[in-house]
Formats: sequence, C-alpha cells, structure tokens
Amino acid sequence: MKDKLTGNQNWRKILRYSTSFSRASKESPKEVTSESHKLLIRAGYIRQEMAGVFSLLPLGVKVLKNIETVIRDEMDSTGGQEVLMPALEPKQNWVTTGRWDTLDILFKVNSRYGNREYVLGPTHEEIVTPLVKSRVKSYKDLPLAVYQIQTKFRDEPRAKSGIIRGREFGMKDMYSFHVNHESLVTFYEQAKEAYLRVFSRCGITAKVTEASGGDFTKKISHEFMALSDAGEDIIIYCDSCAFAQNTEISKHKDADACPSCSHNLRTGKAIEIGNIFDLGTKFSEVFDFTFTDKDSTRKLVYMGCYGIGTTRLIGAIVEAHNDGKGIIWPHEVAPYSCHLVGLNLEESEIKERAEVVLQEIVKSGLSVLFDDRPNVGAGDKFATADLIGIPIRITIGRETFTEGEVEIKRREDSETIKVTISELSKRLVTIIEDARE
Amino acid sequence: MKDKLTGNQNWRKILRYSTSFSRASKESPKEVTSESHKLLIRAGYIRQEMAGVFSLLPLGVKVLKNIETVIRDEMDSTGGQEVLMPALEPKQNWVTTGRWDTLDILFKVNSRYGNREYVLGPTHEEIVTPLVKSRVKSYKDLPLAVYQIQTKFRDEPRAKSGIIRGREFGMKDMYSFHVNHESLVTFYEQAKEAYLRVFSRCGITAKVTEASGGDFTKKISHEFMALSDAGEDIIIYCDSCAFAQNTEISKHKDADACPSCSHNLRTGKAIEIGNIFDLGTKFSEVFDFTFTDKDSTRKLVYMGCYGIGTTRLIGAIVEAHNDGKGIIWPHEVAPYSCHLVGLNLEESEIKERAEVVLQEIVKSGLSVLFDDRPNVGAGDKFATADLIGIPIRITIGRETFTEGEVEIKRREDSETIKVTISELSKRLVTIIEDARE
Repeated sequence: MKDKLTGNQNWRKILRYSTSFSRASKESPKEVTSESHKLLIRAGYIRQEMAGVFSLLPLGVKVLKNIETVIRDEMDSTGGQEVLMPALEPKQNWVTTGRWDTLDILFKVNSRYGNREYVLGPTHEEIVTPLVKSRVKSYKDLPLAVYQIQTKFRDEPRAKSGIIRGREFGMKDMYSFHVNHESLVTFYEQAKEAYLRVFSRCGITAKVTEASGGDFTKKISHEFMALSDAGEDIIIYCDSCAFAQNTEISKHKDADACPSCSHNLRTGKAIEIGNIFDLGTKFSEVFDFTFTDKDSTRKLVYMGCYGIGTTRLIGAIVEAHNDGKGIIWPHEVAPYSCHLVGLNLEESEIKERAEVVLQEIVKSGLSVLFDDRPNVGAGDKFATADLIGIPIRITIGRETFTEGEVEIKRREDSETIKVTISELSKRLVTIIEDARE
Repeated sequence: MKDKLTGNQNWRKILRYSTSFSRASKESPKEVTSESHKLLIRAGYIRQEMAGVFSLLPLGVKVLKNIETVIRDEMDSTGGQEVLMPALEPKQNWVTTGRWDTLDILFKVNSRYGNREYVLGPTHEEIVTPLVKSRVKSYKDLPLAVYQIQTKFRDEPRAKSGIIRGREFGMKDMYSFHVNHESLVTFYEQAKEAYLRVFSRCGITAKVTEASGGDFTKKISHEFMALSDAGEDIIIYCDSCAFAQNTEISKHKDADACPSCSHNLRTGKAIEIGNIFDLGTKFSEVFDFTFTDKDSTRKLVYMGCYGIGTTRLIGAIVEAHNDGKGIIWPHEVAPYSCHLVGLNLEESEIKERAEVVLQEIVKSGLSVLFDDRPNVGAGDKFATADLIGIPIRITIGRETFTEGEVEIKRREDSETIKVTISELSKRLVTIIEDARE
C-alpha cells in the first residue's frame, strides 16, 4: 500500500500509468455527438454523469488547470483582479433586472428556510453590479475590471456535443467598469487582444465574429468562434480578411462578396469559445450605479462583460487537434509534457534504466506520464500514447538499450529520432522551445 | 487608463493599493457574529451577499488559492489524484442511498426538461462511488484515492459566524477505496497525518476529536477541531494528552479525569475544520461495488471519506490569528508576503526610491502589496497594514531616506529594525526561513 499510494516524491511531476485513475478504454459513449466527446471519454479525461453533466478525471483536471493558468495570466495582463462570487444568487436581483422571468435557462432553487429563492448563476451581472457599486464612489476608482473562474449552471433544452454544451460548466467571466463609453471601448479592444492570446496559446485560431447581444445587450456583441463540425453556430466569414458574422444577424446569408474586401465569403459551423459584450449603462441604470465625476456630477457607470467557457475550451481544443488515432495536445495545455513508454520492463536492467530516464525528464523541469505497465506490448502502449495525446513521446526498451539511447517522437510527427540519455534533457528543452515560437 | 490597468509587468507579484479592488473600510457588518467575520469584511477580503452566501474579493481569493495549494500538496503526498465532479447530482443516486429523504440540508433543483431533478451536492459519495466502480475491477486497481476541491451547497437552517458556516462554501473532499478494512485503516491514519500537516501549515493546531458519524456512518468519526469562541461545537479534551471527544457523544460531560492519562479534562468551543469517516462498506453495498480479489471471489470495497472546509478555514485561521488591530496571517497563506508602506510619496525622490525597494522585494522572489496612496498619513497606512495582516511590513519614507534605509516590522512583533536597501533581500529571506521552522 505504501509504495503504491505514497511512494512517489515527485507525484505532481510524475504519473505512473499503473496507478492512474485516468485510463484509456476502448468503449465509446452510447450517443456520440462529436469527435472530442468520443476521444475525451476513450482517453480517460472525462466521464459523463448524465446529459450535459460531466466529471473530470485526473488527466482532465490537469488540462483544465493549464487552461485556467493561461486565462489568469492574460486576464491579469489586462489589469483584471480575480474575485469569486457565489453560484447562489438572490432572486430579488434577477427580478430587478427583469431576467427572472425572461431568461428561460435559469435554474431556480428554494431554501426551506425564510421563504428564500435563489438563481443558480448562469452569469453574474446581477451580483457583480451591486458588488462593485458598493466599493466605487468616484472617477478615481475607475476604470476597474474583476474576473472569476467559476462553475456556471444553465438549464439547456438540449445538452449535446459532450463537454461543449453542458448544463454545468466552467467559465471565466470578467466585468469592466468605466467613466464613459470611450474608456469602455479602449478596454474592450484590450480584452479582445487578450482573448486572442488565450486562444492562440491553447492552439486555437478564433474568428472574432459579430453577433447579437442576446439577453445582455441590444448592441452587437463579439463572439470568438473556432471553426468545427461540432459547432452549433453557423458563421459567414471572409478567408482573405477578418470579416466574420454570425448568420443569426448577418445580411450576407447568400455568401456574396465580402463587404470589407470583396473577396468571397464562406460559411461554416463554429464553436463559440468566448464572447464579449458592450453592456453600456444597461445594468448600471437598473441598479442605480453612479459615480462622482471630476466635475462633481453623478454619472452612470459604463460596463463590459467578457466570457470564456473553460470546460468547453477543452472540447474545442480536441476538435481542432486530433487525428484518427487520438488527441494531439498543444504543449501549453497538455496534461503532461512527456509520455515515457517503457517496453520490456520485465527485464530488470531496462526497468532500472527507465527510472533513470524518468528522473532525467523531471530534472529538465518537465512533467511526465510514465507507462510502466509490465507485460503490455509496444503496439498497445503506442496506441495508448497516441490516444492520450501528450505532445512528446519517449520510448525506452530493448531495441535502444544497448546503445544507451532512447527514442523521441513528437505526437504530431511520424518520424522518430534516437538520442543518448545524456543528450535527452537538452533535446527536450529544444523541442519545447521550438513549439513556443 | 493604460497605466492604471495594464502598466504593471509584475501584476501577480505586485498589487498597488491605489488600484486594489480589495480595500479596507471602517464599516462593520450589521450583524457581527464572530471576530473573523468582522475583520475579513473590514479588511476587504470578503463581502456578504446574503445570509450564508459570500463573495471573495481579490485578497480573499489569494488566501483561498494559497490554502488550496497547501491542501493539494498534502493530498498528493498521500497518493490522492485530483478529479472534479459535478455540483448537479442525479436524484436517483440519492434515492438509492436513502439520503434523498433523510438529509434535510439538501438543496433540490428541477430542470424544465425531461422531468429531471437534481441535488446540489453537499457531499459526493453518491457520485464518486458509481464513478470509481466504473473503473475498478480487480484488487490490482486498489487502493485508490481521489479528491476534489469544489463548491458545496447546504441548506443550513441558520447560517452564522460569517464565512465559517455558509450555505455555499469551498471544500476539499477525498474518497479512498480499499480491498479490506486493514488497508482502509492504514490510509485513514496517513490521511490523519496529512490533515495535521495541512492545518499546521495554515497556522492552526487542530485537535483530533472523536465524534458521531452523522449521516455518513454508524461508526465513530474523527473531527479536526480548532478551539475558538466562534465554534459551534463543544469538545471535551485533555490538556496533557491527545484525548478529545465531541460532547455530542462523550460520556465525560462532567469534565472528570481523562480516561487516557488521568489528568484533568477541559471543555471548550471549537470550529470543525476537517473530518474523516471510516465508511466501511455502507456505500459499496448500496451501489453493489465489488472487486475480484486474488482468490477470484467478488468482495465489497471498503471506503473512507475525508473533508476539509476551504473557505471555512479562512475564517478559522483569522479566529486563531488576530489582535485588537487586525489579522496576523501565517506566511504560507498570506495574500502577499510583504506590505510595503510608502510615506511622503509626494516627494519625487522618495517615490522613486520606493519603486526601487519594490523591485528589490520582487527580485527576492516575494510578492508585495504596495500602499502607494499619496497624501495618506503614516498612522492611517500603518493601521491599514495591521488590519490586512500581511506578515512583513516594510516602510520607506522621509525618516529613513537619507540613510538609504527602510524599516522592517513583523506583523506579530512590536519592534522594528532598520536595514539598508542592499541588505533588504537577504534579511527578508531570513525572516521567511525562520518562520518556516
């Protein structure tokens, strides 16, 4: 027992596959509605508990935490400050904004005590507006942006495409507050750039798409769209310039010439991985959120809101990065940096050497999933590695043992290279650095 | 705008108080039921949204993340693997265990679609047992421990003592699975040690207290109790040995002689900051969770569960670490390591020097809250620093400017020392290292 559960000093950096709770399996979910859903379940990242509700297994948690780290980094770079608001929101605030009756995806919850009713938060304008109002008095306190990474709840009529549209899901939502519309627009553009950096670091090219403001605003909003057959939206976009519109609002439904550059327009299915809204004074009016300006008059605060679906992003990344064999994670979000395949581990010399290689990888500052299963053949182990999709595969076994070498293969390539164990660390760092560029 | 929201390259390491959304205030909550509640609100860590429901402000999020890091570290050291289960749990699983009707703190939620009902998870035996069952077939897959850090919901009759008892709160819950009771007991003892390390790193001396198993088990459970007037439990304990029992189950209510060592017993109020349960086969029986043992027979899995209230722990730490002036954070959970007080910043030379000191602190690898407010006096700034409770205060101002010195004061001490800026980094590292011992 002690060996199995506590024997590992480097638990966070090393996962031995023989002890992993995340295991690959050949079973497919009964109802497969997207490639990412199938791959994430088969590779042991997620488990569907019921329609639209999932558990993340250990490999899935690692990917989510990596995505959250990228998002925190970029939100912090805009000056956003992290808060954590409750999922239980008071009914009264939703009555105040009118969305208690109009938003049909609301989960409503009763307490047995004090005749209370709550909304399970699908978004947080109803909480964040009074919260920021309580602490902002003057123009000197603005601009201000707060964000949170939190679980959201939406009673979706049809929960489909696996983790891409769930009834419960992870989200980063940021809210910004400004003295006037000009200040809001400046921050809105900075947030747009930060969003594009987030998606780029996650290996996704997002199209900034004009869309309806929905229940948030009467103005045009911007959706960040990843083209994918698993998407539920259809966008019309120009291949030559940045023009993109959701067909929901587009006047160019017949795919005529691009209004910006006259090139041809295309249509395609897309997954909405983020959205940003110019809320204007809609919520500050309702909550009477004003500030004292330089000229001593009271003025309404301008607000923006900015969302990224964190668990949905896991699905969108897999939609964009897979082949017939499995997932191909971008480095920055991969659950581990290296996948060490140990072959012929029944032979004690090779087993010992594998442990040396393992420590070499860790010394390079990289995390590693070590397939240490005895009596499992090369074919099975390589198939498992391809399915799980860690970006660098390192193989140690009888074939390269006598030369003191290991074999390195990038998940996205077909060729392998052989390096000595002493060269390994340097080579790994080079591969990771190349990928960053 | 750009300066204010994006001008900081070291945003995560430096918070300029003038831009901070977390601000100290003199207002007290209307209904103050505990010292921690008052201090956390006044110092700008939390905001009460309604009874038992809180928002964490940026300083509060930092403390929570630090606590979570300590917990992850210690849970990983037991071999626990992190998962993330949903808050929405299917009604059927709760009907199966009988707790749909017996657990009166359940929040129940209806979906408009498919006539579904959910429980908002107050605990996760109903999810984790089928989840682990789906992936464990043989004795070779055991023992196994999974944990999550997640928001929990309980419809408490009276939500009181601020963040210590909420209707929505953060929790780490771990579940372990074993081939027999002996293996469970071994892990249970390891988990107990890991829990004591968590609390010790958070600056809390916890008493391991025998208690009722409540809705979880008919066996005795163990509660981790922090003595405090804000506590809702009363425990009877020996000052000389480790004997401690919740008076709920104790036969020693009259505070007679300790049954272990014959010394005197005492009683005291205490906050329950953690609990561990030997669940035996209670949940594996209900969900028919068996494994194939070495002798090829099918046997029931033994289970344990292990909880720590993460947001409650914030309150418990403050109860244990405060004085008349404010909070005194232990180093490992403090929102920032250093609090730089800038005085006389109206003088440009001093302002420039303060920026140099700021960079020195960051170069030492420490994070810093910089009170950069102009035209605020020393008295106000020191009072704010005492209230917020960051463990090391560094002051730069006219008084030490000509000698090229700064003043260092540990929050818990009254004396100050003066050091030159070139000595600062070394001295800070020494203070932090001393605190670790």
